[in-house]
Parts: sequence; structure tokens; C-alpha cells
Amino acid sequence: MSDLGFTEITPSAPIYTSEHGGRAKCLQRLIRLEMPVPLTVALSFDAVHGVSAGDLPDLDALLTLFGPDPLLSVRPSSEDPDWGGPGAILNIGMNDNVHAKLVESHGELAANALYLRFIQAYAVHVGRLDPDEFDEFSDPTADTLQAALELYEEETDSYFPQDPKEQLTEVLRSMSRAWQGTTARLLREAKGAPADAGLGLVVQKMALGVGRGICGSGVIQFVNGKTGRREIRGRYMCKSQGRDALTGEDDRDVMYLTKDTRGRSIEDVLPDMFQALLDYGDLCRTRLREEMEVEFTIDNEHLYILDAVRVARSERANVRIAVNLAKDEIITREEAVMRIPPRALAELLHSQVDPQGTRDVIASGIGASPGAATGKIVFSARSAQAMAAQGEDCILVRRETSPEDIRGMHAAKGILTIRGGITSHAAVIARGLGLPCVVGASNISLEKKEKKLIAEDGRVLGEGDVITIDGAEGEALMGAVEMLPPELGEGFQTLMSWADEVRDIGVRANADTPPDARNARMFSAEGIGLCRTEHMFFDDDRLLAMREMIFADQPEDRRAALDRLLPMQRDDFTELFEIMQGLPVCIRLFDPPLHEFLPHGREGIRELAEALDLGMSDVEHRVAGLREFNPMLGMRGVRLGVTVPEIYDMQARAIFEATLDASKSGEPIVPEIMIPLVSAKREVEIVKARIDAVAAAVKIERGEEFTYRLGVMVETPRAALRAGEIAQHAHFLSFGTNDLTQMTYGLSRDDAGRFMGEYVNQGVYEEDPFHVLDTDGVGELLEIGASRGREEDPDLSLSICGEHGGNPESIRFCRDAGFTYVSCSPFRVPVARLAAAQLAVAEKLAEQG
Amino acid sequence: MSDLGFTEITPSAPIYTSEHGGRAKCLQRLIRLEMPVPLTVALSFDAVHGVSAGDLPDLDALLTLFGPDPLLSVRPSSEDPDWGGPGAILNIGMNDNVHAKLVESHGELAANALYLRFIQAYAVHVGRLDPDEFDEFSDPTADTLQAALELYEEETDSYFPQDPKEQLTEVLRSMSRAWQGTTARLLREAKGAPADAGLGLVVQKMALGVGRGICGSGVIQFVNGKTGRREIRGRYMCKSQGRDALTGEDDRDVMYLTKDTRGRSIEDVLPDMFQALLDYGDLCRTRLREEMEVEFTIDNEHLYILDAVRVARSERANVRIAVNLAKDEIITREEAVMRIPPRALAELLHSQVDPQGTRDVIASGIGASPGAATGKIVFSARSAQAMAAQGEDCILVRRETSPEDIRGMHAAKGILTIRGGITSHAAVIARGLGLPCVVGASNISLEKKEKKLIAEDGRVLGEGDVITIDGAEGEALMGAVEMLPPELGEGFQTLMSWADEVRDIGVRANADTPPDARNARMFSAEGIGLCRTEHMFFDDDRLLAMREMIFADQPEDRRAALDRLLPMQRDDFTELFEIMQGLPVCIRLFDPPLHEFLPHGREGIRELAEALDLGMSDVEHRVAGLREFNPMLGMRGVRLGVTVPEIYDMQARAIFEATLDASKSGEPIVPEIMIPLVSAKREVEIVKARIDAVAAAVKIERGEEFTYRLGVMVETPRAALRAGEIAQHAHFLSFGTNDLTQMTYGLSRDDAGRFMGEYVNQGVYEEDPFHVLDTDGVGELLEIGASRGREEDPDLSLSICGEHGGNPESIRFCRDAGFTYVSCSPFRVPVARLAAAQLAVAEKLAEQG
Repeated sequence: MSDLGFTEITPSAPIYTSEHGGRAKCLQRLIRLEMPVPLTVALSFDAVHGVSAGDLPDLDALLTLFGPDPLLSVRPSSEDPDWGGPGAILNIGMNDNVHAKLVESHGELAANALYLRFIQAYAVHVGRLDPDEFDEFSDPTADTLQAALELYEEETDSYFPQDPKEQLTEVLRSMSRAWQGTTARLLREAKGAPADAGLGLVVQKMALGVGRGICGSGVIQFVNGKTGRREIRGRYMCKSQGRDALTGEDDRDVMYLTKDTRGRSIEDVLPDMFQALLDYGDLCRTRLREEMEVEFTIDNEHLYILDAVRVARSERANVRIAVNLAKDEIITREEAVMRIPPRALAELLHSQVDPQGTRDVIASGIGASPGAATGKIVFSARSAQAMAAQGEDCILVRRETSPEDIRGMHAAKGILTIRGGITSHAAVIARGLGLPCVVGASNISLEKKEKKLIAEDGRVLGEGDVITIDGAEGEALMGAVEMLPPELGEGFQTLMSWADEVRDIGVRANADTPPDARNARMFSAEGIGLCRTEHMFFDDDRLLAMREMIFADQPEDRRAALDRLLPMQRDDFTELFEIMQGLPVCIRLFDPPLHEFLPHGREGIRELAEALDLGMSDVEHRVAGLREFNPMLGMRGVRLGVTVPEIYDMQARAIFEATLDASKSGEPIVPEIMIPLVSAKREVEIVKARIDAVAAAVKIERGEEFTYRLGVMVETPRAALRAGEIAQHAHFLSFGTNDLTQMTYGLSRDDAGRFMGEYVNQGVYEEDPFHVLDTDGVGELLEIGASRGREEDPDLSLSICGEHGGNPESIRFCRDAGFTYVSCSPFRVPVARLAAAQLAVAEKLAEQG
Repeated sequence: MSDLGFTEITPSAPIYTSEHGGRAKCLQRLIRLEMPVPLTVALSFDAVHGVSAGDLPDLDALLTLFGPDPLLSVRPSSEDPDWGGPGAILNIGMNDNVHAKLVESHGELAANALYLRFIQAYAVHVGRLDPDEFDEFSDPTADTLQAALELYEEETDSYFPQDPKEQLTEVLRSMSRAWQGTTARLLREAKGAPADAGLGLVVQKMALGVGRGICGSGVIQFVNGKTGRREIRGRYMCKSQGRDALTGEDDRDVMYLTKDTRGRSIEDVLPDMFQALLDYGDLCRTRLREEMEVEFTIDNEHLYILDAVRVARSERANVRIAVNLAKDEIITREEAVMRIPPRALAELLHSQVDPQGTRDVIASGIGASPGAATGKIVFSARSAQAMAAQGEDCILVRRETSPEDIRGMHAAKGILTIRGGITSHAAVIARGLGLPCVVGASNISLEKKEKKLIAEDGRVLGEGDVITIDGAEGEALMGAVEMLPPELGEGFQTLMSWADEVRDIGVRANADTPPDARNARMFSAEGIGLCRTEHMFFDDDRLLAMREMIFADQPEDRRAALDRLLPMQRDDFTELFEIMQGLPVCIRLFDPPLHEFLPHGREGIRELAEALDLGMSDVEHRVAGLREFNPMLGMRGVRLGVTVPEIYDMQARAIFEATLDASKSGEPIVPEIMIPLVSAKREVEIVKARIDAVAAAVKIERGEEFTYRLGVMVETPRAALRAGEIAQHAHFLSFGTNDLTQMTYGLSRDDAGRFMGEYVNQGVYEEDPFHVLDTDGVGELLEIGASRGREEDPDLSLSICGEHGGNPESIRFCRDAGFTYVSCSPFRVPVARLAAAQLAVAEKLAEQG
């Protein structure tokens, strides 16, 4: 900053984004590219901050710089354009005297319009007068102008200020104050601005755009902000200033940018000027290495470039623009990879509610799985299947979902639950299926018996009523709404291939079913990192065998029931192996508590009693006996594997037989088998001994060889602490961060919803740890587990397979800790691939200094 | 070991307990004290081990040592007498030839008896013949002897071996084999023997005890094994060998030890010999520094001392003996302290079922709280209170207990539950109350509606039937049985005062109620380490206010309900402070989930709806809304404190007002306030800010000063990991190892019962981690928490207040980790004091080398 408190923007002036803001810096770049930018000076953050403390720049010097009777604009220039700032104020310097001169030079209407515009802006933003009253002065007649000046005088008891210095002083003050207002501060902090973010300002000589010749202003860009395709778009309005062209509905002389059958165009009328605009666009693209929207003014056939900003764009356009810039060798491929926020890919992978459409929200909750879907409401998994069978789209609405609902969830197009959080059953499954899902919509109530949904405003919805789930926003909307389709086109594929070129940590998918596995392949997952097997037992024909197994008193009876499940389970795995041919598949052995497979209501118990030929009270008694106080911490996972070993025996056999069957059609499969909920080394030893025995038996029976890898899912704090000794018996450790988070915090994800919102709001937890990996606590256990495991076995494969697996923050953490791969829902795989690639690039850049 | 494979026991022979066993070493000591021990040689563990491999000692040399025609005994000599061993075999060397000589010297009957005894022992233990057949030869006539020899020949097809060397060889072999048998191994391992424990043997020249003069054998001790008081006890039998006097029912000439009106006594007949026995007893006591039972034989008026063993004794006798030895300056006080196994104190603190009585067991479970009690069965807390009001003893029988049962548990004399484990609610509360308790008695079924208990054998018990709870054995017995009373006499008090002299870690009690607190004082706890406050809200008059608070929609309404609880809560604390005057009291703020305070059945909900003037469905809805999937991991502890802060506000106020009230009657109280279930530093900050504010308000209102200490209960793994930053706001950290164990293992203590037995049996877990602190996993978190806390604040007080607090292993761990104190149920306090003292002594001894 010069001693004057402002800096004229010249090619060599010391202008910095971090001191003067992005707009000032961009203007300097335009000036360096020799574009016709009117004289502009920049006020630094410090200078503007000083203004509110009464410490003004040398305004006399500034006004002198702009010459006699200058008309000026003031625009905000914050460090990041996203952080906003006060609106531009134009035509500063207008007063009765200048007005009189302009009447001469530009005509009365133009002079009136300029003065009126300034009076309005000044009255509202500086004088804080009622905008509605000043908005009425739209017609630039002499009477209107007079009325505006009188209203100002009436409201303020003083004549409209005539001194340009006074005008400028007040404008700067009001802008500085506005920046410090609470609302503005909260808004920009929500967008990531630091608490002490500064405001810079640029003061620019007006290019009037309202003179007698061809005059006007407009914006032009060379790319479609929705698609990212190259095309000239923009608006121009004759006799207008600033960004009027974008908002005005004026019927002034129409003039189009490009040749148009409807009327005159700049391309026709001023071909040189049009060519200049094209040239400037090209210059921006190649030299600023970005697609810019250029703001220009034509003043009496002179072209002025007032400003240029990054083209606002959809995420899909962002991808295509970056890819095209890289293809044209304007940026590198790595730069293209770095330009796409990984989470934004979600938008490309799913349908979306058109942001332009109207929204009639009937329920709000947590957007647990992105995308949008429309369908008829159903209240049970069975109805969902029935409706799907008739080819009707449906939305499954449940208080919360349980494993019994899985088939219904497969049949539905979207899910809405009243309870649950970001890692509830519904949320996890929906993300896996790529189904839009809203959970915890507690502002709508579900009357289960009457099959009714009652919204907060009293509206009642029943089965068959059409709603739309907006998983991105976490809302349910009335009726069918306009959608944008998913976008997995060439741009996306190219970007992802570039990402994979630099990525240095593996990305697998969590996939339980053949459709999941196909999605995993579609998104180029490098294998399945977590295949949960429990859902496989909920089919009607399997459930009964499962229940017989649970009710069996003797190991023989258990085995008999499991023998019936074996061929089905083998088919499950064979299909998965075939889909994933050539890639690893990690199968987690049976995990949930057995009571999840038992009926709860009297009716279900009666049916089961009939099916098993048992007394009703006997069944009731046993169901009650299996109930648990804290199922999450109960008889499940390896605890079942140790105490009811027949289940794992059956699963291991199914895996090995499927391995041999699927290997026939291609290269040999090497299945990975994962033991859940381990808390002690001996659990692994015991299960390993039995699985090894099953493997040996299958090899002898079939006379064929195969290999497999056995590993442990680390999801109790103790398993992390004892990872060293556990690794003695494991080829791999995969951290299940969902359960690990629950146990580290002593917090059930199903119950956390009741207070998590308040906890995050109060800053008790910085983030919901089920959403963002808690690197301090859970993360330390991951590091302990990883380092102790690797100390025991340097070749130990390490991975993460919880819901956090696809989050960029978790991927950073896992990459730093030397993990082999992360695993996440198929629809998160592209996000993970991109995030991982960015980490590798960032590290490379940091190393290069 | 000499080259001969045996060692003659002489005063200077190289005999070691660790090589030759305890008996051999003890015999050497007797020999050194110049007692008339017959010639004895010791076979080392290695030598005996060699025998089974065919590697025999030089038996020719051994037999030569004993002279011509020796008769020998062989007795086991394991390292620890408790580990057992094969039975003694006497009269080895007997054959037709020796028999003929003995007929001459000792008479036919004596000779026959000696031969017969050897034939029987040899046939059964060496020849493995049917004991029943040989037991029939009881009458030592010539015919009987002949019949025994013939039977032996018939069964083995060979004449009874005549060669002493062959006899000895086979006896040694059979003993060596017996030691290696599976049953023997399991039995001794159950008593703590290592897998490779060795067997030594002692071969001793027989003192026959069956000659023509005054002959016989007996045992004598100088202390009562039941009471520990000094008195001469023992038995003597004329013409007998070995320990016959203890088991024989023979009508041979009676002779008593001490003067007796019923007949002759050694004291009368052989006063010199009697005096010699007294002298030997004294020698043992002063030189072996132990009360010994001396085995002796009188052979033709010669006295022989064959053996001496530590007097078998009850735990209460053990205490008195140790204290008396120390008072007589035979051992040091520290040695006395070291001689009492801490856990054995439990026997002294409670009534006990007389081990001599008959036991009619009707239910078996886990002995969760020691002691025994008899009373009438009641099935509800209400009935227990009613029965107690009538002065009747009752036993509360429940499927499991919940906080609502607390008053009933106070009223009962003992508790029996069908479900639950060692740290279930019933178990924890019962230990706190010192009530005998058996939990998880799953072999009896409870028909709640019909108020019936049905035992495995079909017996049915109803309300009012009398049973006895044996908390030591984990059994319920039919009817009232014989009891031994508790023993807190002088011996106990003396021992504990000596323990406290050396102890260097604090011991506090977990105490929730005034009776608990009185017990804590009785057992000299150094304060209350954990006062749980939730039970205080279950009184009828409080419960309704509590429920109103839960149902309140607005903070004001919540506060109004809590205002009614305030005076009662203040009285609770005032009484506790007064009882504990001069000692610290650590109060844990409200911890359980709110739904524990709501009714469950329809009837309860209807009553509540009436009381609160709400609709039934409204109440039902809200009760359902508060239900949790995993209450252990839900909305409780500090999570309530943060989201419903009015509860902690009220409790803090009650504590501070009670502090001022109670301080009036004595020295100022410094209350300690503990925040439960913390997982993040910010939780502590938030609660601390509010409590500080309440403290400031109370000080102003009352115009009085007080100080208090605020601390954190570390019971989530995350709190342990983040202990450093948490300690920034805490005066103390107290580790709640119950919950910490649950979360570290991912294992609910309430649900673990279903498989914990199997897990421990299979060695999956070495011990039930809720019973014995898991030093590997949970322990590492304790160490991490302790060291990070102390790093932040070297003066930080560290303690453990979970159920493990009273276990000697946990105390060792906590002492090693530099903890300030341990806290446990009042009835465990003496155990903890003693265990802690022993650690200090052991360390001192180790330092002295």
C-alpha cells in the first residue's frame, strides 16, 4: 500500500490477492494483458479496515488522479469471490453540476438516469433510507429526478451531497461497515472465510454506456456454465450500466451478442469489437488459465473491459472445463485433477432435483445418500416389492429400517426414514445401493397403523401419493419435480483416468450384492473391500432355515439347517466372484446378533411356531431369551463364530467351493475372509483353525488347490491395541470405523441422533464423528493398530472399510498412515479415487516447494 | 542330587523345596531341630521324572543304606503341599521272610497286619487290582493273609513279589505315573500348579507302631484350626500306623493325648514323651515360624517324628495365628500381613454357610457377592419392603434387577437373579450393600406371573418359601442352614492396622447411601471414591418429580420439577457429608438414561398419564421416543449434562448447599464432583462453566465460602486417549473400568453372560474381563490416560472406581501406574487395604534383594 492509502492498478503495481482481494488482482491481470480497462485504483484490506476507524485514504490525491469531474464506481474485492461483499455503487461524483454538463454531452435522459441511479444507491446504502420509496423513481424524467432529490432532502434534512470527496468518503464508510455486519460475517464464515477476512475495494473510472452513439453494457462468456461445452453466451443491453443486462427487463434497443435472426448483434454491427471480445476471452482462457465471464461496456463505440470473473458453473461443467483446459494443454492433467472438489462428483453420479424448479418441502431430515428420485409412497418392504413388480416407482417410508427391509429397499427408488442418523441402517444401505435417502426426518410423523404421514403443516400423505426424495438437500418434496440426469460421460471418465495415474492408495468398494458389485466395477473399484454376508439370509426361503438353525439345540441340528443354506450361499459368492473376476473380494463372516433374524410381533411368532412345529410359548420364550440389552455390544461377530462355529464353517465352505467354481471361467480367485468384532488374539486362532480345516477338506473333496487370505476387522478398541499379536494370524487388518467410533466414544450411532445436532452446534464435537473420522481419538487407535500390525508383519495389508472410507479427510489420514487401500460404497468410489489422487499431487507439489 | 539318584536327608544335605518338594525340606528342618526322625532319603523331581522313563535311582545303594530287611514308607513331596500327590505306601519290604521274622519279634497279629496292609496297597496302587476285593481283608488272621496272597496270585498270575528292590521299583513307578495322570494334573493346575510341576518322594524307614510294648501313632497340633486359638488337639491310636488315628474307627486300646477322664492318656502314661511332643510343637512354632501338625509314632515306648505339616485352618484362624505369631515376635508384622490372602478376608466379613452342613442346592449361578443369608422368597421390591417392615427376613428373587429395585434390595437379606453376570446391576449393588447375591442362576426358571420358581428337578417354590443364598459358592439352598457368623474381632483389626502402616496407595469406598457410607467408615475407607446419585431419584415422591422433569418441554418447566427435588437431594448429600466428616466424598453427577425412570407396562403408563394429566397415547409416545437401541451407548452421563443442563445445575446446587450445611458441624467439607461418560474436552468445559456459575451463586446467596474439586470419570476409550487435554479442566481423573471394559471390548456386561463362561473355558479370554482387569487392553488405556493426565498436571489425582477397584491384581496395576487411590465396595475395602499393603511389603523385600 502506498502512503496515499490506495494503489493505482498498473501492470507492475504491488497488487496481491491476499492484500487487495481477488478482483483487484484479476483487474491487474487484465491490464497486463493490455485489455482496455478504465483507470482503476485498489484499496487494500488494511485501508478499508482503516476507513471504519476514521482513517481514510488520501481522497484528494485519488480524485486528482481520476481528473476533473470524474464519475467512479466502487466494487468489493474480497480474497475469495465466494465470500461476497457489499454491492457495487456506480456513478459516484454525480451532482447537479456534473448533471448539467452531461445533459449537454449525453442528453437529458442519460444524465437523469446516471444521477438517479446514484441517488438511489446512495440513499439506500449510505443513507440507510427505505429502498421501497426510492425504487419508485424508475422513469428518468426531470420530475422524477427532482422528486428523488426532494425525498432525500426530506428524509435527511440536508441537500443531496454535492462534493465528490464527501460522496466517496461515505460510500467507503458504508461498505466498510457493511462488511463488518454480523449477517455478512456469518454468511462468509459459512463459506469458509476466516474470522478476520478483509475487504478490499476497487475504485474505477466509469465507462458510462449511456451516451449518444452505440452504447451499452454486457457480459460474455465462452462456455456453457451448465454443460461446460464451448459456446458463446451472455447478454448485452443498450444504454445500460454495470450488470443491468443480466437483470433488466428493459425494452431499450435490442442488440444481441452473436448473429441473430431476431435483430441486430454486436457481431454484425461492430465486428471488430466482437472479434476483440473473442480475443479477450481467448486471452483469459490461455493466460488466466480459466473460463472467465467478461464484463464490458461499449461507450460511444469504444470498448471497455470492466471486470472478469470465473464462470459460474455446475459441477459437471466444472469437470468438462478442467478436462478441456488440460486437453488444450493450458493446464496440466494434474491441475485438472486438483480443480475438482471430490465431494462434488456426487452430483455427477446421481439424478438431481433441478435447482431452478419450485420446491414444496413436506419433510426435512439428513441427506444420507445423494441423488433424487420420485415415486409413490409405500410403508413396508413388502409393498415396495409388490409395487416394483408392477413396474411402478416407489419411495419406501419407514420409521427406521432393519435388515428385514433390505429387499424392499432394493425394490424402492428412494428411502425416507423418520429416525436415524448419517450412519443408520437405512443410510448405509442406501449409499451402498446408490439410492437417494433422507433419514431422521423428525418433522413429519408416521402413523404406522393408518399408513399415513402427517407433515408439520398438517398435510396428510397416504400410500400411493407421489413424493420426491432429494438426498442432496435432505428433503422430501411433494409430487414429481424436474430432474437433471446423472453425467458419467467422457469428461468424467477422462478426469478419473488422470486421477488414477497419480493415485497411490488403493480404492475398493463395499458391496454386498451382485448389483453392488456391478456398480463397483462401473466405478472402477479395485476390488471389494467389504462384502457383508448377513443380508443373504433374509430371503424367505433362507430365513426359515436360519431360524431353524437358531432354534436347534444340538450342533448336528444346526449343521442340518446350515446344510440347506450352503448351496444358496455358494451361489451368492460364485456370482460375486464372477462379476469381480480378476479383482480381490473380501468377505466378512456373519456378524449380526441372531435375534435380528427372529420375528418380533405376535403374528410372526405364531407363524414361526407353526413352521417349526413348536409351541407358541416355547418360541416366545426363546425369542425373549435371545433379546439383548445392548445388541451392539452383545453376542455377535466372532463371538458367534466361536460359540456357534457351524455358521462360519458353512460360510467358509461356501466361499471355498465358490472359489473353485468361479475360477473355472477365468484366472484363479483368491478370496479374502474377514473375521468381525475381534477383541482377542485367541478368537482369531480359533476361527482360523476351523477355517483352515474346512479349506483342507474342500481341497481333498474336490481334488483342486486354491489359496485364500484370512484377516481381521478391527472395530473394537482392544483389537486396535492388540493389533500386533492379532497380526500374527492375519494377512490383513481392515478397520471398521463405524463400530470403532461407537466404542471409542461409547456412543451408539443409532441413538446419537437425539443429541448429535446439538452437540455439533455447541461445538462439543467439532463434527459428527460418524460422518467425519475423529482423527484425535479413533484416529489414534487406527495409528496404533496400523503401526503395531506392521511392526509384526511389514507386508500386512491395512485398510479402512467403515462409512468414513470414502471421505477425503479419512483418505488423507489413511494414506499418511501407510494404508493399503480404503473401501467405501460404490457410489463413493469416484470421490475416493479423486481425493486420493489430489493428495498425491499435493504432496508432490509440496515436495517441489 | 547325588549320583545315586537319591539324597539322604541330613542336616547339611543339599535339599531344596524347588527340587525335592516341601515335605523333604520340612523333614530336613525337623532333623536339624534334632527331632527323632527315622532315616529318610529324598528323591528329587528329576529323579522321579526319570523313573517313569525307566531311569531308576540306585536302589541297591538305597536299600543298603536302610540296612537288612528294612521296612520303608514312600510319601509324595510336591513343591506346594496343596498340589496333592499319590497316597503314601507303607511297609514296603514286607515279604514272607520278613513276615516270619516279625511273627517272632512283634507277634503274629502285628506281622499279619503289616504284611496285609502292604499287600492291599501294592495290589491296588501298583497292580491296579479292584480295591473293593482287597478291602475285604480287614481281620489280620493267618487265613486272611493267605487269602490276600492267593487273590493277588489269581489276579496277576504271579506270586506276590518278594524282592524289596522289585517292590520299591514298582511303587516308585506307580507313583510317578499317577502324578502324570490327567486328572491329577488338572486338579493341581486348578490349585495353581504350573504345567511342569514335579513330584519328589521321600523314602523313610518305618517306625512300626504295632509292636508289643506301648505302640501306636497319631497327630498333634497346638492350635485350633477353626478359631486359631492355642489349644492342644489331635488323635492317637494304639497299635496303628501312619494317619490311621485320623480315620480309623478301631476299638483298639484307647489312649488320649491329654489327661482325660474317659481313660488313659499319653500325658498320664508317658509324661516325658508328652513333654517332648510339646517341646517339638514349640520348636516348630518358633523355628519353623508356623503352627504345625506333627505326625508321630510310638514304637515300644520310643517316640518317632515322621512328618509335620502346616495346620489346616479356616481363614479366620489363619488371621489369628499370623497375628499371634507376630505378637510373640516369631514373625514380623509385615510377615503377618503377607501371610493372609486378601480375598480370604471376605470370609471374615460375612456370615458363611457352615461347610460341615448338608447342602440341598436348588439353583446355581455366579456368586456375585459373598456371604450367606436365609429368608423367605419375595418376587418384587415392594414385597421385600413389606416383609422387612414386618421384621421378616426375605430373599429378593428377580429375573434381573433395575434401579427401581434398589429399595427392595436394601430391604432384602439376599438377592437371587436368573440373568446377569458378575457386574450386572444386582451384583454391583449387592456388593455395595454387602448382601449375599447369586446372579445368572439360569438353571432355575422364574414364572413371574404365577410367582413361582421352578428348579431343574421340577421342585416348585413360591413366595414365602425359605431359601438360603450362598454367595461364596454361587448357590441357593433349600431352607435355613447352619451358619458361621462374621469375624471382625481383635485379630482382624490388628492385622488391618499393621497393613495400613505399610500401605502406600489410598483405598476409598464406592458408597451411594448412608448405610453404605457407614460401612465405608466401619471398614476404614479413606473417603468415598464414587457416590452414584441416580438411586436417589427412585423414591416414590421423587420419581414423579423426575418424570415431570423428563416430560417438560421447556427449561423453565424442567427447572420447576427439579426445584422440588433440590431439598431432598441436598439432604442426601448433607447426611453423607456428615457421616464421612473429615474424609473426601466424590459425587458422580447423574448418569443413567432418562428412560430408566419411566414406567414400562401399560398400567404404569396409565398411572403416569393420570399423574401428569396427559393423554395415555401422549405418554406412550414419549416413552417410546426415549427408548434406545443401545442404552449403554446412548443419551446418558455428560450427554444429558450438556443437553439438559438443568439436572446438573440442581445437583451442583444441592452439593454446595449441603457442603455449607454439613461444614457447620465440623471441619469444612471439600466435595468432589465427577462428570460421567466424558468423551471430549469440550464436554468438561461446558459442564465446568455451569457448575462454577452455580458455585458462585450459592456463595453469594449464603455469604459463605467453600471450595470444591471437579473431576472426570474416564470410562470411554476416547477419554483415556484425550486425558491430557481433559486434565486441563479436571482436578482428578477416576477410571470407571466397568464401562471402559465394555467399550474397549465392545462387550455389554449385561449381555456377556450368555457366552462368557464358554469364552473363559475355551481360553478365548484368560479371565472374565469384568472380573479381572484386562491389563493388556483396558490396562493400556489406563496407563495412557494416567500418563497423559499427569504429563499435563503432575498433581492430578488418579483413581479407579470400577468394580475392579478392590481386586488385588487391579490394585497392583494401579499402584504401579502411580494412582492416588482405588475405590471399591465397602465390603471389599479390607481386601483392598490388605492387598495394597502386601504390594508395598513385596516391593520393599524385592528392593532388599
